[in-house]
Amino acid sequence: MTLLNETHDPARKSWVTSANGHEQFPIQNLPFAIFREANTKDQWRGGVAIGDSILDMAKVAALNLLHGDAKRATQAASETSLNTLMGLGATQNSALRLALSNALLEGSEHQAALESCLIAQADAEFNMPCHVTDYTDFYTSIHHATAVGSLFRPDNPLLPNYKWVPIGYHGRSSSIGVSGQTFPRPVGQTKKPDASTPDFGPCQRLDYELEMGVFIGQGTTLGQRIKITEAEQHIFGMCILNDWSARDIQAWEYQPLGPFLAKNFASTISPWIVTTEALAPFREAFTRPESDPQPLEYLTSEANTQVGNLDIALSCLIQTEKMRQNDQTPQQLSASNFIHSYWTPAQLVTHHSVNGCPMTPGDLLGSGTQSGPEADEAGSLLELTQGGKKSLTLDNGETRKFLEDGDAIIMRAHCRRDGAVTIGFGEVVGTLLPAVF
Amino acid sequence: MTLLNETHDPARKSWVTSANGHEQFPIQNLPFAIFREANTKDQWRGGVAIGDSILDMAKVAALNLLHGDAKRATQAASETSLNTLMGLGATQNSALRLALSNALLEGSEHQAALESCLIAQADAEFNMPCHVTDYTDFYTSIHHATAVGSLFRPDNPLLPNYKWVPIGYHGRSSSIGVSGQTFPRPVGQTKKPDASTPDFGPCQRLDYELEMGVFIGQGTTLGQRIKITEAEQHIFGMCILNDWSARDIQAWEYQPLGPFLAKNFASTISPWIVTTEALAPFREAFTRPESDPQPLEYLTSEANTQVGNLDIALSCLIQTEKMRQNDQTPQQLSASNFIHSYWTPAQLVTHHSVNGCPMTPGDLLGSGTQSGPEADEAGSLLELTQGGKKSLTLDNGETRKFLEDGDAIIMRAHCRRDGAVTIGFGEVVGTLLPAVF
Repeated sequence: MTLLNETHDPARKSWVTSANGHEQFPIQNLPFAIFREANTKDQWRGGVAIGDSILDMAKVAALNLLHGDAKRATQAASETSLNTLMGLGATQNSALRLALSNALLEGSEHQAALESCLIAQADAEFNMPCHVTDYTDFYTSIHHATAVGSLFRPDNPLLPNYKWVPIGYHGRSSSIGVSGQTFPRPVGQTKKPDASTPDFGPCQRLDYELEMGVFIGQGTTLGQRIKITEAEQHIFGMCILNDWSARDIQAWEYQPLGPFLAKNFASTISPWIVTTEALAPFREAFTRPESDPQPLEYLTSEANTQVGNLDIALSCLIQTEKMRQNDQTPQQLSASNFIHSYWTPAQLVTHHSVNGCPMTPGDLLGSGTQSGPEADEAGSLLELTQGGKKSLTLDNGETRKFLEDGDAIIMRAHCRRDGAVTIGFGEVVGTLLPAVF
Repeated sequence: MTLLNETHDPARKSWVTSANGHEQFPIQNLPFAIFREANTKDQWRGGVAIGDSILDMAKVAALNLLHGDAKRATQAASETSLNTLMGLGATQNSALRLALSNALLEGSEHQAALESCLIAQADAEFNMPCHVTDYTDFYTSIHHATAVGSLFRPDNPLLPNYKWVPIGYHGRSSSIGVSGQTFPRPVGQTKKPDASTPDFGPCQRLDYELEMGVFIGQGTTLGQRIKITEAEQHIFGMCILNDWSARDIQAWEYQPLGPFLAKNFASTISPWIVTTEALAPFREAFTRPESDPQPLEYLTSEANTQVGNLDIALSCLIQTEKMRQNDQTPQQLSASNFIHSYWTPAQLVTHHSVNGCPMTPGDLLGSGTQSGPEADEAGSLLELTQGGKKSLTLDNGETRKFLEDGDAIIMRAHCRRDGAVTIGFGEVVGTLLPAVF
């Protein structure tokens, strides 16, 4: 089963020479963002990353070079958010990808015209790529679920439903921001284990969560179910997601209805959305240990089994206030891979809609923290410090159990594979400010 | 402490004579909806209920009769959704209420002009009153929490955090519909207590939840906290909410992150939003049993203690397919009152934003099922049938443990009090269709 086409051809080079060999944005990638020239009040608009530049889709639309589906998709991509583009669906988005790939290809007849549509990424600022219509966070790493479960419920870490149900819960759209987001340390109720009454004050156990985000493309109406065989047609693409978490608030509030204020003060995503089609070369078989139950029939398809998984290398770094003052580069905290996910993106979409829940272009599905099986593959401080029992010592001598004011967390994601051109998701950066209290 | 003004004066009568003595929509109410003439493709627009009629706010805006804040608010109310009106905030909405109350008053100079802006409610159809930006569902009835807790966790019905934390969780916006909503019985995973593997199929324990909804008006930015003394300034108004629930799906999926597919297949709200100001005559003291902890300081204010609670009588009725075939009117299942809520609307808003979570005009906060202390005040079948152990026998001989295909659930809400004119919220009707399986 191959999902590859000419746009994935490793031999393709672009006349945008910075794209060739670019570790994030070669011509095989072509991710979307919403951008404008920095320090202006220009209209936000869609752009496509190519090497060190952005192809301004509003300018491309004005040139009227493309035709048919690609033309309609270009118009959608020139809007102030990508929701319309997402809603066009896989066929039109694929047509746009092919047209852009050809137009950016070495020797394209459109080179002269499109050169006027480029802006350096260094000169741009980014907005949210779309209006997030609804946000759902899943819990797809069994390693994370087991590690966190053993801290919150030592006697019962992995609940009996975990291997059957892609566990998820609704999150908050209003506090999702794009890379560069800053937010004050949240304030709220916490309770010490031996206290009889709760405390009120700034969170003492602030954490990040290393996740991937899945953006829904074409939507559905109430009562409509997305079959597993059609699920990927409804996925526009993926981004990096940092689902900041206040562990002490979470521990006190989360029963019986789940996390609430522990999660909804901020979540940060990368500006770039890498499309489903761009990820095709990095697909993997979806497998389960023989001792685990196989997914129920509605979560099973031949394509999902053969190529439903994705090989996306993830890393998480910290840059403290002191590191910034001393011009020290960020230090890596952990590295993991999306391939450890217990459920595939298609399974998440199918499960989410199996009850008739309407999906909307711009819905964001978080993968949940992508911890791997090894201790240094943990996607949160909660896991790396064993719930704050163990201190991490950074290279500059600072120590961390949880985040301190001024800490910036940087997350990166790449797809690398023999025979394919490496692509990247850019990065997501978020910075914790002191509590306003 | 009085929040009453001339718009609440019981002596006020309208030149719209059907409003005088109207049990829902006298001149003292003036709730908002989004409507158009039924069976047309007219633009949706805001309207205000007055007696049996709707005052068409787009036509009022075109007449240009009102001035200042009331004029700006009228323009906002003529849009296709009420989000802009909600975002104007309490001062401008109060100005609009006063101007409309005066313009609809017997003897108003505007009577002749405004008569052309009326349409009979019987000739209208309704849309969602606003785009629901984020939906949060709380759990404010301690009677419901205890009853449900004893079914899901017999050994541990009311968790230790309940009396301290206004427990809430994020819900799904995309499946919220306006009264008249129909939806197929949801399909999903369930597991019988003694089974080793889950089943897949239509929900067997479909339930309603009798709730009130709180709509946020003026919003906040990330990091901004709404103090309890300012919380009501951020509440635009309230509606009736039926939070449909699939109990068997819920029991299997809800741990550890809360309800998900058990809730997000449909939620139905009344078309009319009764404003915070219209509810002023029905305020009550907020009290706690002496044996219960008093709320933490951030959830306490003099005004909240004195008049933070609301006396809203609620009722829930069923009309089965057979009842409709035989032209039988709906039969009441239970009646309750919002006054049993363990937390006030102001406390919900303050708690929700205490961590800096941004609130947006159009956010909907569900109260949670409003069960009262008595068995016949239960706001769900789960409670009325003791988790399906006991059958309800309807007047026509039909029995119910949970809902059957074709059942319609009708919820109503009224505020009645000596010395005040009775006002109502209209009703919310939703109908369960057979599963598509």
